[in-house]
Amino acid sequence: MALWGGRFSSETRNEVTQYSESISFDQRLYHFDIAGSKAHVTMLAEQGIIPAETAKAIREELDRIERRIDAGEFRYDIAMEDIHMHIESALIEALGAEGARVHSARSRNDQVALDIRLYLRSEVDSLIAELRHFQRALVAQADAHPRTVMPGFTHLQHAQPVLFAHHLLAYVEMLDRDAERLAGCRERINVMPLGSGAIAGSTLPINRERVCEELGFSRVTRNSMDAVADRDFAIELVSDLAIFAMHTSRLSEDLILWCSQEFDFIELDDAFCTGSSLMPQKKNPDVCELTRGKTARVYGALTALLTMCKGLPLTYNRDLQEDKVAIFDALDTVKMILKVYPPMIETMKLKEEKMLAAASDPALMATDIAEKLVELGVPFRTAHHRVGAFVKYCREHGKALDEVTLGEMKETIPEATPEFLTLFDPVASVAKRNITGGTGFEQVAKQLDFWKKSLEF
Amino acid sequence: MALWGGRFSSETRNEVTQYSESISFDQRLYHFDIAGSKAHVTMLAEQGIIPAETAKAIREELDRIERRIDAGEFRYDIAMEDIHMHIESALIEALGAEGARVHSARSRNDQVALDIRLYLRSEVDSLIAELRHFQRALVAQADAHPRTVMPGFTHLQHAQPVLFAHHLLAYVEMLDRDAERLAGCRERINVMPLGSGAIAGSTLPINRERVCEELGFSRVTRNSMDAVADRDFAIELVSDLAIFAMHTSRLSEDLILWCSQEFDFIELDDAFCTGSSLMPQKKNPDVCELTRGKTARVYGALTALLTMCKGLPLTYNRDLQEDKVAIFDALDTVKMILKVYPPMIETMKLKEEKMLAAASDPALMATDIAEKLVELGVPFRTAHHRVGAFVKYCREHGKALDEVTLGEMKETIPEATPEFLTLFDPVASVAKRNITGGTGFEQVAKQLDFWKKSLEF
Amino acid sequence: MALWGGRFSSETRNEVTQYSESISFDQRLYHFDIAGSKAHVTMLAEQGIIPAETAKAIREELDRIERRIDAGEFRYDIAMEDIHMHIESALIEALGAEGARVHSARSRNDQVALDIRLYLRSEVDSLIAELRHFQRALVAQADAHPRTVMPGFTHLQHAQPVLFAHHLLAYVEMLDRDAERLAGCRERINVMPLGSGAIAGSTLPINRERVCEELGFSRVTRNSMDAVADRDFAIELVSDLAIFAMHTSRLSEDLILWCSQEFDFIELDDAFCTGSSLMPQKKNPDVCELTRGKTARVYGALTALLTMCKGLPLTYNRDLQEDKVAIFDALDTVKMILKVYPPMIETMKLKEEKMLAAASDPALMATDIAEKLVELGVPFRTAHHRVGAFVKYCREHGKALDEVTLGEMKETIPEATPEFLTLFDPVASVAKRNITGGTGFEQVAKQLDFWKKSLEF
Amino acid sequence: MALWGGRFSSETRNEVTQYSESISFDQRLYHFDIAGSKAHVTMLAEQGIIPAETAKAIREELDRIERRIDAGEFRYDIAMEDIHMHIESALIEALGAEGARVHSARSRNDQVALDIRLYLRSEVDSLIAELRHFQRALVAQADAHPRTVMPGFTHLQHAQPVLFAHHLLAYVEMLDRDAERLAGCRERINVMPLGSGAIAGSTLPINRERVCEELGFSRVTRNSMDAVADRDFAIELVSDLAIFAMHTSRLSEDLILWCSQEFDFIELDDAFCTGSSLMPQKKNPDVCELTRGKTARVYGALTALLTMCKGLPLTYNRDLQEDKVAIFDALDTVKMILKVYPPMIETMKLKEEKMLAAASDPALMATDIAEKLVELGVPFRTAHHRVGAFVKYCREHGKALDEVTLGEMKETIPEATPEFLTLFDPVASVAKRNITGGTGFEQVAKQLDFWKKSLEF
Repeated sequence: MALWGGRFSSETRNEVTQYSESISFDQRLYHFDIAGSKAHVTMLAEQGIIPAETAKAIREELDRIERRIDAGEFRYDIAMEDIHMHIESALIEALGAEGARVHSARSRNDQVALDIRLYLRSEVDSLIAELRHFQRALVAQADAHPRTVMPGFTHLQHAQPVLFAHHLLAYVEMLDRDAERLAGCRERINVMPLGSGAIAGSTLPINRERVCEELGFSRVTRNSMDAVADRDFAIELVSDLAIFAMHTSRLSEDLILWCSQEFDFIELDDAFCTGSSLMPQKKNPDVCELTRGKTARVYGALTALLTMCKGLPLTYNRDLQEDKVAIFDALDTVKMILKVYPPMIETMKLKEEKMLAAASDPALMATDIAEKLVELGVPFRTAHHRVGAFVKYCREHGKALDEVTLGEMKETIPEATPEFLTLFDPVASVAKRNITGGTGFEQVAKQLDFWKKSLEF
Repeated sequence: MALWGGRFSSETRNEVTQYSESISFDQRLYHFDIAGSKAHVTMLAEQGIIPAETAKAIREELDRIERRIDAGEFRYDIAMEDIHMHIESALIEALGAEGARVHSARSRNDQVALDIRLYLRSEVDSLIAELRHFQRALVAQADAHPRTVMPGFTHLQHAQPVLFAHHLLAYVEMLDRDAERLAGCRERINVMPLGSGAIAGSTLPINRERVCEELGFSRVTRNSMDAVADRDFAIELVSDLAIFAMHTSRLSEDLILWCSQEFDFIELDDAFCTGSSLMPQKKNPDVCELTRGKTARVYGALTALLTMCKGLPLTYNRDLQEDKVAIFDALDTVKMILKVYPPMIETMKLKEEKMLAAASDPALMATDIAEKLVELGVPFRTAHHRVGAFVKYCREHGKALDEVTLGEMKETIPEATPEFLTLFDPVASVAKRNITGGTGFEQVAKQLDFWKKSLEF
Repeated sequence: MALWGGRFSSETRNEVTQYSESISFDQRLYHFDIAGSKAHVTMLAEQGIIPAETAKAIREELDRIERRIDAGEFRYDIAMEDIHMHIESALIEALGAEGARVHSARSRNDQVALDIRLYLRSEVDSLIAELRHFQRALVAQADAHPRTVMPGFTHLQHAQPVLFAHHLLAYVEMLDRDAERLAGCRERINVMPLGSGAIAGSTLPINRERVCEELGFSRVTRNSMDAVADRDFAIELVSDLAIFAMHTSRLSEDLILWCSQEFDFIELDDAFCTGSSLMPQKKNPDVCELTRGKTARVYGALTALLTMCKGLPLTYNRDLQEDKVAIFDALDTVKMILKVYPPMIETMKLKEEKMLAAASDPALMATDIAEKLVELGVPFRTAHHRVGAFVKYCREHGKALDEVTLGEMKETIPEATPEFLTLFDPVASVAKRNITGGTGFEQVAKQLDFWKKSLEF
Repeated sequence: MALWGGRFSSETRNEVTQYSESISFDQRLYHFDIAGSKAHVTMLAEQGIIPAETAKAIREELDRIERRIDAGEFRYDIAMEDIHMHIESALIEALGAEGARVHSARSRNDQVALDIRLYLRSEVDSLIAELRHFQRALVAQADAHPRTVMPGFTHLQHAQPVLFAHHLLAYVEMLDRDAERLAGCRERINVMPLGSGAIAGSTLPINRERVCEELGFSRVTRNSMDAVADRDFAIELVSDLAIFAMHTSRLSEDLILWCSQEFDFIELDDAFCTGSSLMPQKKNPDVCELTRGKTARVYGALTALLTMCKGLPLTYNRDLQEDKVAIFDALDTVKMILKVYPPMIETMKLKEEKMLAAASDPALMATDIAEKLVELGVPFRTAHHRVGAFVKYCREHGKALDEVTLGEMKETIPEATPEFLTLFDPVASVAKRNITGGTGFEQVAKQLDFWKKSLEF
């Protein structure tokens, strides 16, 4: 019979045990469950609720249990439902009645809330560290190619020449916002719920601030009903992970395009690709494709969490047990992405001449002509229209933009001067975009410096 | 080095192997992979592409491999990626070069498509059978209480008295549509993709119709590119499962309400409930709550699948490998729901007197008064307004609707006769709703007969 | 005061009126609401519930109201909530007490269910017709280029040469499944709910089968509680639309790639593209990009609908009013896609020489060499490995696959014969894939014939 | 021909114009578009890129245009695509060539990014203010009933008595986190993108910091490619809105339960309810139900946004135009919720005697008995088991917990003393839970003080 089974006449059915168990996935919380229980009994003893020697015995036994779990010597049994019941049972088995004092003034509701918060706080700290590592890989690759010019795209059409380093640094910006968001979420995770009981607090004279301090939280929760019903922090976290995954899906898309035979801008290292069971020539960018697919998986976890919490009356409802399935899956997925991406970025090879060749498409410099006209005093919209007409002229005459004579150019752009014919150099075009945030060499060098300093290269 | 590794210079990195493996979840396909390979080699031999004795040896070895897997004696290794490579490798290990003939005129792309279709066809067949079983449990519980009256709700407010059996049969209707949808989906699953190769078919003279017949498919796919890129059937299936899960979430909500102390209409068997770690009196309808939560999980799987396929260029992209994670999770979740619900419904106890008492709220019969007025020739909207005014009168005078005199009633309903005072009996009210689909005793008896016949009681 | 306001003491607050109105979006149902009411009063009169002349007067007035709405002369007022109340009010205004008989034995719950079903049945019929039209556009474009060879892709890497027509026909297959799914959904839409009342049916002697027949439904709903609570058909429909939108997002992705400067396989007509406000040379495939974006919008509608219905107790709850927002948005979005795609496909221009050039990448023919080895009796896996080694050799020696001598080829493929050097022609490669569903000329011609017949060209 | 149409040979097709227009929804941005343009031309003039008098004329004309739009006198035309083109065209129409200078060194890409950021910054500020208003309504209602006792629920089962004020304050906590999250999001919105051009910055000597300062942003974006491709801030905002909506869906669920006939704890004001078209007695909590439904709608918007951005290559793609549909719909929905909830909370009436009666269920005090045993030195788990056995005993003997004699109690709880029989008073039970965050009177009074101070009552 379960630890809570006093009032029950019949045993839980086997199917129900399987349906409702969480030990298969919440066992990963054991370290945090034990840390929480140790802080809890310390406080209980200090408050005179349990004897000091009992608290000591419980802490020591919890340490032993932790070592057994670390060593893989702890036996799980789905009849015991979850990690909390497993550890409490082991304690009672070892210490008898004294062990049975651990759950004084505590409910699984606040205990679970505590464990998840401790766990997620720890995970968020690692995530932020790994995000910095990922940023470093991008900055390093950018820094190794500070003058490589490539076509910049909008609508997947040639837009303007940009620096490859500038393109990579766009992702560094995205990851920076990811880290910022996680730091904000961490503040909302880092609040101490224990002492909220099942719903109403406790009639025993506990000291919640003491547990808070012991476990390094920034403050205690202010409302016991909210504390056991709240999963906002988990939704917020998975939402942050979804945005991060989205960023990696965009990077993946860029890389997949770049290593297609048609773009041919980069080559990924063999170690990050796989072949085909049928086609002997194939080398596929599997990591990138899987990352797009795994992004969808993180979105699925977010959908599950939001849906789960919708319309639940206060306070705790068992629906919330499923939260961990979604949270853990999203976390594990993102951690795998973070492990595989930095080395893939570090080892990828550029085909700089191919990039430059593509960037030499003179149509990419059409905006430069229009802006040159603005410099000469032509209103921008007029300038745009003239260059548009020039493009159309070239197209109709089957010529590239840089294959016309000045005379031909003047048919559509009367203000054109010989200088106009020199505007088709992508390197010069990049160089001129020397404003904060722009792709000019000087600006990108500044950005690289900024990031190397920020990321402590 | 992987079976496809001829052109590669360096080994896959360990992180990438872990990132891209699917053996941890696709091993469940082994039976279908083997069945597919057996049909494939039979055809290859018949077409003279491989020797007959090779085909025989391969089939026999595949049987041996299947028995080893059945017995748990087959060793998996994530370096071997997926179940397809595991089985092909085992075959080659056992048969040498002859085993290496199995993959002639086949790619993993069409092989995976085949395996999933075989697997899902089998799963859909079980699902439909289990849905029927679930319907039977509901019909049996309804049939055991053919005359139990309860309040019917709209907006969670008392609406009109209904039969408990009628309420349960509403769910039988929903499950029937679920089964119908699954049957439609099965038709789209049951199409044979093998022979599509990686993308383009094969140059070898294979006979796809032969494999189709051997594996019991209804027809072969018509376009090889579509065949390897298509996951519609999986999305459709998970969408059907999401609707089914939604139905169970609604039933769960009803049951949770009914076993609250405030409603107190039913009692679930102890075997389907759990207690509280803190509060000794608690008996919680965990199965119902978890089912609402698990519904969210199935929605998450659907979101993942749809997102995954969006914007993928033709044909196969590795993103699609993640499809199985979502499909399997949705299937497993729904299968667990189907296992736990029928016995819970069968064992639940009704508190019929509580239901009747609640249904005796005279406000529930307000519509009967309005319809009586219509019978007397009063236009409906006028009738509605008069009864509304009567309700307001009662409320303002602190009386229940059945506590007024005929004189009082006539103040707002001039047409009222002594018969009007007899309209507050919920049983009589139910009895009068004798139209197709209505909650009248006669109609519900007809519905019960219909379902008992349909479901072969 | 609202038509239902008899029991209410105070008016609905203005914010609440705005919060709960649906006339701004459900006015589109007027035609179906009127058709339903006409059938309803015809039946009421036949059953003797209302006078025949009243029924006649109501039908005629409903026709007048419809004409006023058609002509844009009907005034809407959010205080009147929804289209149903607007029309009933107009009827009462015109006919007085006799008009007030229309709502006899009817509730808004079953009335709304009827109206949506009538509306969606009509919409599904148009959708199927428009899907056929879209298929025809694809088949026509394929039929115009029956021998155009292009590279087929997996993982966005060159895989094998395929026919452009084969690629387009893959989409024709997808649309065919879309139409099939819609036809299945139509069966579940086409069931008649009127007479279910608010929840329990009616005490008046109505004849539901008569209304069913009059409105062309296939049968009446069997359970009144299910009938007013059910939105399965809407979720199923939007799920079908989501899969369709996903198909168009894939086609869009292909087209966006094809009209990039790097692929340069097609040109979309100017009429389907837009330019840039800054860059004069730009011509962007906006329709394709928007379609990917709009696919996300349809997914959002599906998420909303599923979430909305989750955990709702029986029967009708006001949450369901929001269903129409999601359904209509998904339908309108898909109808716009269906309007813009066929002409875009019809007018797109192929750059066949560019396609062929890309398909002439000899690596695309690597599988042909492996299959040639299989023909010579080499086990497939051995063959694959040899060709893989050959690819690696070429790569290391900086040669394309078709630039080596026979002697060089024999270093990795000892079985190679002079014939092997002729295997690099993509047209010949395509031709050989002559099996059902394959990309061979003969097969694709058969597929084209099949579709032209099916789609009645 | 469109302003960007220089290179185009044919007009956009009508269907395409309709497909791609955004003026129908982005017109709401006009104020921000104009403010942005004014700051832009001021800077352009200061930098000598356009004449000072041109800048002045443009600013004045923009003011005139704004007044025309304010007054509803501005004509929209979908052929002009979006609000940006409308305003630029109006400017050119009024000022001729000089107006055509406004778009110098600017692209629609950075202009749109600027406008949305300005708009969302303003909206977030209002949202936070309205959240505070909502909190005040809850605190006021709680403060008006500081001693009302009600049953607290877990699993929708009676758990422990709590204060109604404590229950409402749980929601105040949730809304506080919502405001915190929005404040974090505001920081990421408040970054200035103008000057990023289409993708690469500008060749003209603009001063981005000047525009930043003028428009009150905290800093300029650091990377032009990121700046035009980024919609993180919108996803984050809608994710915050989804969590807020989820909170209101939970509150709605509580209110719906409370005003059911079975709970009967509160009465909502007539002004926030509607009736039934059929059942004259009905008074439905529509606002609450609609809020649950509208929560689903906000989730749909989040799904749409996340899906939309997934897998997009850098930089701007037209898919992103659909972002506004989702953002605006989520914002409008949440703003409506925020308008209707505070007055509904303020006007709701409590049925305090009903709440107290329900809270007097002696089973709610079972935990108090267990904790009393802990005080007497009984290990908690033993105490829990004894009280569980006591509950079972009462159940089997058909008695409420407070109907037994001390002798009977001692059969299962040997340690019981006469004091134990006094533990069934819910008010005393509440009073004892006097720890931080608990439901005790003293604690809740402290919480009320805290919030009144925080919210500046």
